[in-house]
Amino acid sequence: MRLSILLRDGFTALDIVGGYEVLANLPGMDVEFVAPATGLVWADTRRLALHAWRTYAQVQTTDILYLPGGPGVEAGLLDAELMATIQRLHASSTWTVGVCNGVEWLGKAGVIDGKEVTTNWACRSKVEVYGARVNTQRFHRDGKLITGAGVSASIDAALYLAGLIAGEEVAKILQLGIEYYPQPPFGNGTPDEAPATAQAYIRQYESEGAERIAALQPPV
Amino acid sequence: MRLSILLRDGFTALDIVGGYEVLANLPGMDVEFVAPATGLVWADTRRLALHAWRTYAQVQTTDILYLPGGPGVEAGLLDAELMATIQRLHASSTWTVGVCNGVEWLGKAGVIDGKEVTTNWACRSKVEVYGARVNTQRFHRDGKLITGAGVSASIDAALYLAGLIAGEEVAKILQLGIEYYPQPPFGNGTPDEAPATAQAYIRQYESEGAERIAALQPPV
Repeated sequence: MRLSILLRDGFTALDIVGGYEVLANLPGMDVEFVAPATGLVWADTRRLALHAWRTYAQVQTTDILYLPGGPGVEAGLLDAELMATIQRLHASSTWTVGVCNGVEWLGKAGVIDGKEVTTNWACRSKVEVYGARVNTQRFHRDGKLITGAGVSASIDAALYLAGLIAGEEVAKILQLGIEYYPQPPFGNGTPDEAPATAQAYIRQYESEGAERIAALQPPV
Repeated sequence: MRLSILLRDGFTALDIVGGYEVLANLPGMDVEFVAPATGLVWADTRRLALHAWRTYAQVQTTDILYLPGGPGVEAGLLDAELMATIQRLHASSTWTVGVCNGVEWLGKAGVIDGKEVTTNWACRSKVEVYGARVNTQRFHRDGKLITGAGVSASIDAALYLAGLIAGEEVAKILQLGIEYYPQPPFGNGTPDEAPATAQAYIRQYESEGAERIAALQPPV
């Protein structure tokens, strides 16, 4: 089975690596990092870069299409090649995974109209405009579509998908392998339960994401 | 403040990105990826590569020294330049973070003798030989030394450290930013509570790690 992670400038690294670390360790899984061109693709911090070694054009089909989020999602919505790539790969994928505001890409590509999805809590209204019913779950399945809430929810969503692919016993071993018995030091409340000031801070921070990353230069 | 993440061939990506995603978003934090040479450094899957843009030799001091684990740790124990780099940076760091079996590097470098640490549950006996008291916590502080259990524990350890650096209110906002309200789909048991067969599988898998990655070729 092949997992194709679509990269584009300005991703949030944990959106990718949380899901990757689970799915890449499924028995028989191969992973590819796919971008508009091969080479470095910089994360939203402009300090971390992943190497893409396949281009969108080189990948005509895949088993698992994986879309991360981040401040770069906004520009990606205007990228016709990205949208065509999502439509092409989703057409024959076994599973399509969207995490965080990466679910907006699925919306723009026209593949979640009438579907039920989850997404980053701060982006629900942006996803609803594409005709999806947006719930507040940490991960959700609608047919072959697996969606995750923000960032670290990629881990939970991928473990759930691993269970669907390989069975619960294998998924439990993967969970043990990444020692996922979380103990968040400051409680385990959902974003909807967070104080209004914290919610406002994050909404502001995320609304300025595209502007913020445009002002940061990668070191090389 | 500067966070220096030491890369070496064969790391486990979530050991790095779990902590990075928290600490890099602390106000005023800069992040650098540091390796024996600049360029791509491949993870244990041989499919994900991070770009290192500073060399060990170029980094003489840092504020936060960060050591990830992975199957590549074993070879790193024999790397005199790595050990000298750890000793040099730890000597003046404000914080030193070791995650997963990356704590073995701290042991070999001689900086945890007489200290209390945690580590990957399958590596406790390997860490004890360096004179450390090894506990079973998810994260632990001993002075300026922050250690984390395996892989995903890097998130919890980093949130705890973020609270020490910037206060609990900021750390809570970071936790909200990464939507860390985990809901592991297959329960939340610790490795010590896992079935013996699952424990044995992971111990075997991890004991063969160095051999496994030596047999895998990066795609480029």
